[in-house]
Amino acid sequence: MTSPTEPRRAGIVGTGLIGGSIGMALRARGWHVSGFDRDPDRAARAVALGALDEVGPMAGAEVVFVATPVGAITGAATAALAGAGPGGAGEAGPVVTDVGSVKASVVDAIGHPRFVGGHPMAGSEQEGVEGADAELFAGATWVLTPTAATDPGAYARVHAVVSSFGADVVAVAPERHDALVAMVSHVPHLTAAALMELAAADAEEHVALLRMAAGGFRDMTRVAAGHPGIWPDICAENAGAILATLDRLVGRLSAVREVVARADRGALLEMLESARTARRNLPARAALRAEELVEVRVPVPDREGVLAEVTTLAAELGVNIWDLEIAHSAEGDRGVLLMVVDAAAADLVRGALLARGYRPSVQPL
Amino acid sequence: MTSPTEPRRAGIVGTGLIGGSIGMALRARGWHVSGFDRDPDRAARAVALGALDEVGPMAGAEVVFVATPVGAITGAATAALAGAGPGGAGEAGPVVTDVGSVKASVVDAIGHPRFVGGHPMAGSEQEGVEGADAELFAGATWVLTPTAATDPGAYARVHAVVSSFGADVVAVAPERHDALVAMVSHVPHLTAAALMELAAADAEEHVALLRMAAGGFRDMTRVAAGHPGIWPDICAENAGAILATLDRLVGRLSAVREVVARADRGALLEMLESARTARRNLPARAALRAEELVEVRVPVPDREGVLAEVTTLAAELGVNIWDLEIAHSAEGDRGVLLMVVDAAAADLVRGALLARGYRPSVQPL
Repeated sequence: MTSPTEPRRAGIVGTGLIGGSIGMALRARGWHVSGFDRDPDRAARAVALGALDEVGPMAGAEVVFVATPVGAITGAATAALAGAGPGGAGEAGPVVTDVGSVKASVVDAIGHPRFVGGHPMAGSEQEGVEGADAELFAGATWVLTPTAATDPGAYARVHAVVSSFGADVVAVAPERHDALVAMVSHVPHLTAAALMELAAADAEEHVALLRMAAGGFRDMTRVAAGHPGIWPDICAENAGAILATLDRLVGRLSAVREVVARADRGALLEMLESARTARRNLPARAALRAEELVEVRVPVPDREGVLAEVTTLAAELGVNIWDLEIAHSAEGDRGVLLMVVDAAAADLVRGALLARGYRPSVQPL
Repeated sequence: MTSPTEPRRAGIVGTGLIGGSIGMALRARGWHVSGFDRDPDRAARAVALGALDEVGPMAGAEVVFVATPVGAITGAATAALAGAGPGGAGEAGPVVTDVGSVKASVVDAIGHPRFVGGHPMAGSEQEGVEGADAELFAGATWVLTPTAATDPGAYARVHAVVSSFGADVVAVAPERHDALVAMVSHVPHLTAAALMELAAADAEEHVALLRMAAGGFRDMTRVAAGHPGIWPDICAENAGAILATLDRLVGRLSAVREVVARADRGALLEMLESARTARRNLPARAALRAEELVEVRVPVPDREGVLAEVTTLAAELGVNIWDLEIAHSAEGDRGVLLMVVDAAAADLVRGALLARGYRPSVQPL
């Protein structure tokens, strides 16, 4: 038994970017965190960087976060569930959660009331524990996937811990989660890769192709520049939802093909208008209410210093830029800065930009 | 006959963003520019903004730029070709070029040795003549589509004029141009709209969807936020290439589907690696040689002032940022600034960023 003055204990399996960030977030809130990684060097670096108190067994942990690659979650979670919880041997073991991008197969395979599937929608370009950050989850959406078999107390404990990191918890069924991420992440990624591959095949034939690839194409294929290593696991574990969504996309593209083939201007305009409305309604940041934010659009020439001037101006005004995108025009080198700022600061920003010769427009998100 | 001291004369039909910018670029180089627009108010604004010397006939013009919507090019170009050129009545008429996004149908329909199809790969978020800029084409790729029937003197004249704007001329056959833009512009646009529509249909069922749509999805669907007005003409005029490219994309997605369905990890990795290599080789700016530039990647937390700090630092160092992208990670709110700078300035930028506590990495484009 731990004495009342000892810190609450948590465990981490897999001390990469996400596991390391969870460790840091827990330690920043007073938890004692032990754990390990299949790569002992990485676990040692996690200790050195402050993501773990110690490498070693997780006995007495209230909660264990499994942050391994998707293919290793079931084994790691099952082992953690069999371990001793805060009540010691003979009492209930720890609550276990994971951070994988696919949920239904994992939740089904583990099938334990003290396991709660999870998926923090946060990441970083940094891939290892070196990129870990205690604040990674502040403002991020963290999906939990309880089922009818989940122990409500276990769910409440995971919910409380991840909420304490500043994350915004969304609960959805595991199958629904998988269908949603197939739509907004997995299939878009595969589509970007397919487009890039086709264009590259053409480019071998004619180098002018890539000189004609302007901002829109760059935006669409950007995700294809990412590391492919995580995708075989994701595609294997979420094959059902990915195949269904690919079929829907192919069906939609076939419908577009028909509209183009019969030169149906009305149907084409309707389709593009509907997509436009939906895209403009896409929230810039999940954790903020859209009505409190506005988008400031600033056409910017492609000349030295303009980005610095616009963003510095916002900083000088004390206005936070919640989100910033460079929207390239359909063709060409010019762009528009899209800045998301608090609605209350819109006039301040607009006035300052006008005074510097820009032509900003402000619109609700 | 014009006297030797009079300025060279040019004409513009259609004084929107592109036509107005051409007018300004010509006038900045000493040309006398007359022209008109189907909207008399817009033509008057073009004069007021300095894009035209006068609204009116284009008699004596050496070169006429047709900058109307795609559907109106053939009529306007045919009328311009019948007009009087610099030699006056009885002499050869003006050289005529256009700026439409589709070339084969236009070039075929006009079928005149003094017509040279053109397509400047430049644009702007601004849609009207109010966004026109004499420097719009500096550094942009300007495609010309001469055919075997094109008068070499006419081609040389158009080439010389658009080169004088600072544009980088690429000559390709009209059909090839259309196939290339179908691949890098038209089909990506339609695909973005299809993805956005599918996701929006799901979102009506479950609002969590859009909270789970992170940076990658935003990047992929960004072009779908654009005005749909130009697309019916483009799809009608370039239907052949668009249909062929849509078929190739659907074929590729079906191949991806097979790889996912049979859980072929090796084939999936190979496909994604190939796409990744191609995307990383995509030039940031057409007009610059890739070997002279490097990409500086700077992981940035989502906090106030960081954009200003990084871009201001570059400005203080006197380093031009040729291109800048915010690459959101696959999930979450963090990002990486991708800055393209001269290779010679890479160490300077890297040192300054390190000194400010950033963790930049530099890689060739």
